[in-house]
Amino acid sequence: MRILSGMRPTGRLHLGHLSVLENWLRLQAANECFFFVADWHALTTEYEKPQMIREFAREMVADWLAVGIDPEKSVVFIQSRVPHHAELHLIFSMFTPLSWLERVPTYKDQVRKLAELGKDITTYGFLGYPLLQAADILIYLAEGVPVGEDQLPHIELCREVARRFNFLYAPVFPEPQGILAEIKLVPGIDGQKMSKSYHNEIPLTASAEEIGRLVNRMVTDPARIHKDDPGHPEVCTVFKYHEIYNQVEVAEIEAACRAGRIGCVGCKKKLAAILDGVLGPVRERRAALVTRNGYIEEVLHAGCERARRVAGETLDRVRAALNM
Amino acid sequence: MRILSGMRPTGRLHLGHLSVLENWLRLQAANECFFFVADWHALTTEYEKPQMIREFAREMVADWLAVGIDPEKSVVFIQSRVPHHAELHLIFSMFTPLSWLERVPTYKDQVRKLAELGKDITTYGFLGYPLLQAADILIYLAEGVPVGEDQLPHIELCREVARRFNFLYAPVFPEPQGILAEIKLVPGIDGQKMSKSYHNEIPLTASAEEIGRLVNRMVTDPARIHKDDPGHPEVCTVFKYHEIYNQVEVAEIEAACRAGRIGCVGCKKKLAAILDGVLGPVRERRAALVTRNGYIEEVLHAGCERARRVAGETLDRVRAALNM
Ligand code: SF4
Ligand code: SF4
Repeated sequence: MRILSGMRPTGRLHLGHLSVLENWLRLQAANECFFFVADWHALTTEYEKPQMIREFAREMVADWLAVGIDPEKSVVFIQSRVPHHAELHLIFSMFTPLSWLERVPTYKDQVRKLAELGKDITTYGFLGYPLLQAADILIYLAEGVPVGEDQLPHIELCREVARRFNFLYAPVFPEPQGILAEIKLVPGIDGQKMSKSYHNEIPLTASAEEIGRLVNRMVTDPARIHKDDPGHPEVCTVFKYHEIYNQVEVAEIEAACRAGRIGCVGCKKKLAAILDGVLGPVRERRAALVTRNGYIEEVLHAGCERARRVAGETLDRVRAALNM
Repeated sequence: MRILSGMRPTGRLHLGHLSVLENWLRLQAANECFFFVADWHALTTEYEKPQMIREFAREMVADWLAVGIDPEKSVVFIQSRVPHHAELHLIFSMFTPLSWLERVPTYKDQVRKLAELGKDITTYGFLGYPLLQAADILIYLAEGVPVGEDQLPHIELCREVARRFNFLYAPVFPEPQGILAEIKLVPGIDGQKMSKSYHNEIPLTASAEEIGRLVNRMVTDPARIHKDDPGHPEVCTVFKYHEIYNQVEVAEIEAACRAGRIGCVGCKKKLAAILDGVLGPVRERRAALVTRNGYIEEVLHAGCERARRVAGETLDRVRAALNM
């Protein structure tokens, strides 16, 4: 199956993204994958300060490769270096009813959320976000797109756009499927959703020392004052992490915590070591990658080239269907 | 001054367009002009039946050249062959408030008018029409755009977009001026506005015989029954044409008509001869052009090449300003 997925380069990747990338690795093993840096999408929210997008994009691709995305196998590229996305998006816009975009549930939601953060995104481009996504997907005739539950309406829109094109002109596009991925939901160190805007993330590139410091700041059971007070793991963020990353010991830790047989300091030390076991190898591969001078740019150059070739073929078929 | 203007290839050109092209000739004489076939814009209204756009585009360019547009001097090209327009439009969309587009007066107007003709254009692309126009203009750093009164709000939007880009990123764009052209308003043969949708037009390529037939069908003063009844030229479409194309004789015709000294048949014969004097040379140059095998395509090939070069330079500056 041909699969497409992208990430917006709006900041450094963190442990939450690692779960997404692990899903990409599973997909990569058995499919033809296109992974792209969605820098035009990043512009929708970052248009007032786009200067960091380029750097975040580089860093992000380094992270991908460090995690195991294989540029020989998968097509790794940057959206804005394949102008075909913009052209297909423009063509789609001509027959896509405004109402289809206005009723996408994430639209009003996101506008409101970002307004609370002081960002005004009631722009023409943000309304068209899911349509650009449809172009991103369909320009590669992708059949599968890994998504979260909340993104399913975007896939539905993409399918509607494909159907409408096929009906009006010629059967060029498949109707892509959303692949509901089982992504581990990693909380931030304060127990909320992990996010740059909450300053509660564990960076993918964190050193052992930084991991230790961040784990130390994690919220535990506030009722435990003495080491032998019985604990309540269900309210403890450290415990949530053990559940995700330390399945071997988690049952033991739960029992020990409830019985007051383990202290939080020791419990955190355990976790820090486990997390360093997860991030250490990524960190090392990443360090090796970035010392290879020009390697990331080489990967992107080749990836963009491959992406443009496929996208160009689709656009030729689109233009033929429109007789333009 | 660098000037940009375009026409939508949605049908054959007629006498009304000739007035617009005469204005282009005046502009061409003293400026650096970019004239383009707005085929993506044509899609906004023709998306259900785009199959004729390509042919109309060819025919239109033949008309332009026949009228005197000089492809050595001016850049003659097709919008959809310069994908840079789509890319700049997408970038602009990211910082253009929806409200700017919703308040453009032509928007609701046109949606209503076309709904009456059974066409639904409440699409994302049609809402973005003036933004695509802004990209069309600014990608060439054009400083002047010939417009009718009703298009002035589009130029204002274009200026706002240029200002916003320059303010947010870097001073890349000029603020183009609308050049209010004095275009002769040629009525259709029924006295209404000349338009394909009213089937009242005189085609630019009409033969002498066809001109005669169309002039014969023109509405004259209905009060004149006998040749010597006094006429009322102010209600007569034939007379309106004499006012536009026959300034030498118009005073004499007016007097003769009011005095009942000239019959409508003779008056129409005169007009048909005058119109053939206008269209004949265009028709001949056009016939000569289209016999030159591949000539139109050559012109377009070179024109699109020139357009892409200029557009590419602008996009480089845009990307540098965004650091993308
Ligand atoms: S012992 Fe571990 S699981 Fe229990 S509250 Fe402390 S950190 Fe949380
Ligand atoms: S004579 Fe000429 S101007 Fe007078 S009504 Fe007839 S056509 Fe019109």
